[in-house]
Amino acid sequence: MSDRVQRILSHYRGENPGVLTNLARMLYHGTLAGTGKLVILPVDQGVEHGPARSFAPNAAGYDPDYHFQLAIEAGCNAYAAPLGFLEAGAEKFAGRVPLILKLNNNNSLFKDKDPISVQTASVDDALRLGCVGIGYTIYPGSAHAGTMYEQLRELTEEAKFRGLAVVVWSYPRGCQLSKEGETAIDVAAYAAQIAAQLGANIIKVKLPAAHIEQDAARKVYEQEQIPIETLADRVRHVVQSAFDGKRIVIFSGGGKTTDDALFEQIRAIHDGGGFGSIIGRNSFQRPEADAVKMLHAIMDIYKG
Amino acid sequence: MSDRVQRILSHYRGENPGVLTNLARMLYHGTLAGTGKLVILPVDQGVEHGPARSFAPNAAGYDPDYHFQLAIEAGCNAYAAPLGFLEAGAEKFAGRVPLILKLNNNNSLFKDKDPISVQTASVDDALRLGCVGIGYTIYPGSAHAGTMYEQLRELTEEAKFRGLAVVVWSYPRGCQLSKEGETAIDVAAYAAQIAAQLGANIIKVKLPAAHIEQDAARKVYEQEQIPIETLADRVRHVVQSAFDGKRIVIFSGGGKTTDDALFEQIRAIHDGGGFGSIIGRNSFQRPEADAVKMLHAIMDIYKG
Amino acid sequence: MSDRVQRILSHYRGENPGVLTNLARMLYHGTLAGTGKLVILPVDQGVEHGPARSFAPNAAGYDPDYHFQLAIEAGCNAYAAPLGFLEAGAEKFAGRVPLILKLNNNNSLFKDKDPISVQTASVDDALRLGCVGIGYTIYPGSAHAGTMYEQLRELTEEAKFRGLAVVVWSYPRGCQLSKEGETAIDVAAYAAQIAAQLGANIIKVKLPAAHIEQDAARKVYEQEQIPIETLADRVRHVVQSAFDGKRIVIFSGGGKTTDDALFEQIRAIHDGGGFGSIIGRNSFQRPEADAVKMLHAIMDIYKG
Amino acid sequence: MSDRVQRILSHYRGENPGVLTNLARMLYHGTLAGTGKLVILPVDQGVEHGPARSFAPNAAGYDPDYHFQLAIEAGCNAYAAPLGFLEAGAEKFAGRVPLILKLNNNNSLFKDKDPISVQTASVDDALRLGCVGIGYTIYPGSAHAGTMYEQLRELTEEAKFRGLAVVVWSYPRGCQLSKEGETAIDVAAYAAQIAAQLGANIIKVKLPAAHIEQDAARKVYEQEQIPIETLADRVRHVVQSAFDGKRIVIFSGGGKTTDDALFEQIRAIHDGGGFGSIIGRNSFQRPEADAVKMLHAIMDIYKG
Amino acid sequence: MSDRVQRILSHYRGENPGVLTNLARMLYHGTLAGTGKLVILPVDQGVEHGPARSFAPNAAGYDPDYHFQLAIEAGCNAYAAPLGFLEAGAEKFAGRVPLILKLNNNNSLFKDKDPISVQTASVDDALRLGCVGIGYTIYPGSAHAGTMYEQLRELTEEAKFRGLAVVVWSYPRGCQLSKEGETAIDVAAYAAQIAAQLGANIIKVKLPAAHIEQDAARKVYEQEQIPIETLADRVRHVVQSAFDGKRIVIFSGGGKTTDDALFEQIRAIHDGGGFGSIIGRNSFQRPEADAVKMLHAIMDIYKG
Repeated sequence: MSDRVQRILSHYRGENPGVLTNLARMLYHGTLAGTGKLVILPVDQGVEHGPARSFAPNAAGYDPDYHFQLAIEAGCNAYAAPLGFLEAGAEKFAGRVPLILKLNNNNSLFKDKDPISVQTASVDDALRLGCVGIGYTIYPGSAHAGTMYEQLRELTEEAKFRGLAVVVWSYPRGCQLSKEGETAIDVAAYAAQIAAQLGANIIKVKLPAAHIEQDAARKVYEQEQIPIETLADRVRHVVQSAFDGKRIVIFSGGGKTTDDALFEQIRAIHDGGGFGSIIGRNSFQRPEADAVKMLHAIMDIYKG
Repeated sequence: MSDRVQRILSHYRGENPGVLTNLARMLYHGTLAGTGKLVILPVDQGVEHGPARSFAPNAAGYDPDYHFQLAIEAGCNAYAAPLGFLEAGAEKFAGRVPLILKLNNNNSLFKDKDPISVQTASVDDALRLGCVGIGYTIYPGSAHAGTMYEQLRELTEEAKFRGLAVVVWSYPRGCQLSKEGETAIDVAAYAAQIAAQLGANIIKVKLPAAHIEQDAARKVYEQEQIPIETLADRVRHVVQSAFDGKRIVIFSGGGKTTDDALFEQIRAIHDGGGFGSIIGRNSFQRPEADAVKMLHAIMDIYKG
Repeated sequence: MSDRVQRILSHYRGENPGVLTNLARMLYHGTLAGTGKLVILPVDQGVEHGPARSFAPNAAGYDPDYHFQLAIEAGCNAYAAPLGFLEAGAEKFAGRVPLILKLNNNNSLFKDKDPISVQTASVDDALRLGCVGIGYTIYPGSAHAGTMYEQLRELTEEAKFRGLAVVVWSYPRGCQLSKEGETAIDVAAYAAQIAAQLGANIIKVKLPAAHIEQDAARKVYEQEQIPIETLADRVRHVVQSAFDGKRIVIFSGGGKTTDDALFEQIRAIHDGGGFGSIIGRNSFQRPEADAVKMLHAIMDIYKG
Repeated sequence: MSDRVQRILSHYRGENPGVLTNLARMLYHGTLAGTGKLVILPVDQGVEHGPARSFAPNAAGYDPDYHFQLAIEAGCNAYAAPLGFLEAGAEKFAGRVPLILKLNNNNSLFKDKDPISVQTASVDDALRLGCVGIGYTIYPGSAHAGTMYEQLRELTEEAKFRGLAVVVWSYPRGCQLSKEGETAIDVAAYAAQIAAQLGANIIKVKLPAAHIEQDAARKVYEQEQIPIETLADRVRHVVQSAFDGKRIVIFSGGGKTTDDALFEQIRAIHDGGGFGSIIGRNSFQRPEADAVKMLHAIMDIYKG
Repeated sequence: MSDRVQRILSHYRGENPGVLTNLARMLYHGTLAGTGKLVILPVDQGVEHGPARSFAPNAAGYDPDYHFQLAIEAGCNAYAAPLGFLEAGAEKFAGRVPLILKLNNNNSLFKDKDPISVQTASVDDALRLGCVGIGYTIYPGSAHAGTMYEQLRELTEEAKFRGLAVVVWSYPRGCQLSKEGETAIDVAAYAAQIAAQLGANIIKVKLPAAHIEQDAARKVYEQEQIPIETLADRVRHVVQSAFDGKRIVIFSGGGKTTDDALFEQIRAIHDGGGFGSIIGRNSFQRPEADAVKMLHAIMDIYKG
């Protein structure tokens, strides 16, 4: 057994064997099995942005089967999606890739400065579909964040009790945050801390920028001279903010970008001690062969 | 057994045998049995628009028995109505036409730019009345959409667990949508995707217009040159948006119109790969013989 | 057994034997037993308008016993009241008159253009007090109507499951209705339809006026030439709007009026095919002997 | 056994033996045992007004034991307080004075024109502490009154089912009431009626003033010439408004006043047929011996 | 056994043996075991203020293990933290320091003049992690205080029923309080009273200032000449306001300050009869050895 994986799992000894088993299933699966690194394929953009914006660039993606195949082909550690997509393929691809059921979703037909993501599936759904974990989005900073925290709390308690791992998408938003502030380093680190304190096993945040949003935080960053200049520095700070590296933190790929820019980000995540990536649009919006090649290149960086 | 029906059912293998049985009951019932096409009679206008606006044009429709008879006579695949109408005839017509109990309803005595449709019946009601499925309306785009998604989620979980099929009316509405936007092609496709991701077995949307509502979507439609010129094109795009045709999508007939216009729409639905129609006012607001004749003409198109 | 009652009960064959039994208990009780007509005594004005406005004109009415006695003496089909009044006399008068427990109430110490009536008793209360049914008020048109519909739905499901009949007071109100509109013929018919679709066994509405409130409805009334000139016409239309006469619709007596005016209304209800009356203030606000005489005169009209 | 108590209990025959037993425990306890009159010590001012305003005038009152001792010493029929105060002494003074657990409370650190009192203890708490009943405050007239009515309804159902008596503090408040209106005779009588209809066994109201608040009520008071000139008249009218004297109505002592003024009020309550007093600040804000003497003087009036 | 501890426990005789056991576990643990005094280490600042502001000054604190070690090393009576921090170390340090699970939390990414702290962990979580008690924050004065009181009530009932002690952080806040008012002596005493009446076993308040916030209170403080000049006076008044010293009241250390200022505060708490301190930032934001030394110095004062 991999020492790296064992060391990571040792930080989760407060969890029951069911949760540890499901974390191990992801960490020992796919191309990165045993490395302690993770690349996860998430496909919730159909709900979040609409079908055409998500799948028209590579029309194969309208079909739920496609994403299972892509995740299997590329050797991703897990595939995360909403209820409909998982129900459509969970039987056909049973046991071939660890599944994460996204339990809440938002869409862009109604936009609110203080957004809320509502529950669209249950822990029981995750169990009947053979998933290793649940996914849940919180918007720290939203006036409605408390509603999501309380719902996440209940779902987390139920999921862990039934042996499922908990993956939290922590995306700062809200009327008191500037647009820049949503990815500010202080806010990103704060978002990781909140998710960790809420009991998340795996935390997904956006790549942090060098901007500092909150005045009370800026003072500390300056006084304590916290290094935030390079992306690797910032990744390191976010990872530290999630229990000094004792919680798995992975970073999202964001909108479609060039491969070079993407690989550079991955290297920064790797150098900063990040645990991996969750890459949606950059993978499923290109032809399958191309996507697999790109994902393998990313995994090679993480193996390095 | 019909190959077409078997192929459709193969896309629902994530569901339990109870749900598959009830989907099959609709697909193997009536004039279109075995064709993989559906024509459903919905009568919730009494609540939605009031009794006179709904039934005065053909006063036989005040009587709940009438709609059972019409659906049976015409050989519809199913009859969908609110609690009161089904309770009034479910015993008398037991087993003669598959029933869908509409679990939520709105009415027009209070109008809100961000409408909500409230629960007026339960899954247990559907079971005791011998229904094959439940019906539920969502208004994607409404500020209150989240409330409906969460209620639908709970009802869907319960209905499927008890072997009932789930039919979702997905009608975009809300303060951030223009009147035109409610049937815009991008919005209609989005509404179908949301319903599919929420776990709907059958999705009912309005016929989409060529208008594009959202700027972020327009870019993609233009760039990817998605064909939306003809109604058949748009139907095809909506069907693709519901898991690449792996979910049954049917289209509403809208307000009363001429038969020629109606048949033209049906041909477009058929050509675009739509799974059928749900036709209320155009059927029950004319004399029974006339309605049966018209419905048979429609079914002939779908058989073609 | 009365043919008229049997014909009425045949429209409720979707209900379980418990509900049918309790409907029969009302229809076979009192002066109008077996006629298929009902006169019910309702006394919720103490809560709705306050004690002095309700009972000072005939101070005997402060005492809960009084209304039991009056209903028994006059041979009413049922007596309907809130929890406190029924608890105070249900033991003393056990089995002497069918009781309907009013499960929700409003009061006039706080007035809202969009009123809501809140739950003040339970189905279990109705059972332990030996009632034949529950009563519930909805305000179609109120911005809060949805909350009442959902509560009524839950209570209806529970009540019927336990064999109790469901009586719905359907009173249009709300910021989008004019004062006249609350008793407009289109709105009254709509209110009856909503109650019927929600599963009400007995529907109570106010006597409708010739006014038409909604433009969309006016068109239909004119085009289809629906007769609404006389009160009997309007009663007939409302009864038709409740499943073509397959649901029991009774009419309220309104504020205190002269006997002649009242009897004229009763004749119109009778001529229009209404199922009876629910008469509060006009009965309990006069001396008992006088009230009994007046109620018998009304019952004589219904027998005619 | 006392005839007076038996007559009072005969009005509660709709209740189960557990509730009757606990009502009897109060009516047969203390100095006024068997008289059919009640003097209750309530101490919820620590929460309602803060500790210094409540207890500084007689610092012994900071100690929860003090109020048990005072109630026992004076021979009160019951002692009513919030959870913390009862938990602190219920074991030490077990069985020495009937206890009423106040289940909801408000405080004055946040003031709202439409106040709400929130639940701070449960029926199970009342049972484990050996109480004879629960206490609950409603604010008829508050925009939030409905929330309280529904919570009281649930608690009442549970309390009575478990054999506890229900004591309701009915205090009119709210944005549509003038300051004077809170104790207006029409409003006070209305508040008593509401509590009675909600199922209260014992009703506590403030002493009513001669002011009439609501125009619709004024007409009736004038027309029916309801006597409201003297305090005794008004007490009589409020008692009549609570089911013609078939519900126990007691009156609060209000803020600290002179003994002479207080005794005058008590005589008016007695003359008007009131069932007793609930006296907080006027008793615990003076030295114990003085308080006992004063309470005995009051009880002497009620015995008279 | 310590007489002091036994005397304190005698004030909690209303609680079950489980709660008494867990109170005793804290009072008999660590450096202050048996003295009747408590020093508790709370670390919820990661959520409340963000990770950098909390842990950058002493980066060891990013690691959840650190705080367990610090509490053990210093001999604190208990360590209180949110779910994530306790889950991360509860197994490794099982049984070495009494744990309090903080069940609700607020964060500073969204600020409201009427704040609310939402539930982030459960009583079951506290039990499975081996805690001696739960912690919960209320904001008396907030427009949302009622929501917290009702949630605390439910959690308190469940926690005590399962033998856990209840520790309440009572922090006045809200739109009707001035900034000064949040620590005003009348408000602090009121906050302690509210927590005590809600059933708290241990109450944590901020050190009170001499300011008086509410006019109605000021009158009483002046008239009754309540001593509030020195900090010890004010501590004494707050302790008195928590059931005359029959509830354990401890005081927070507030933001980082000089040791001399801190020790002066501790002496005032000790002189005023306070039961101890809860010291977060002043302990974990300095090097471990330094923190242990400082905490021991504080404990020496309490032993004195």
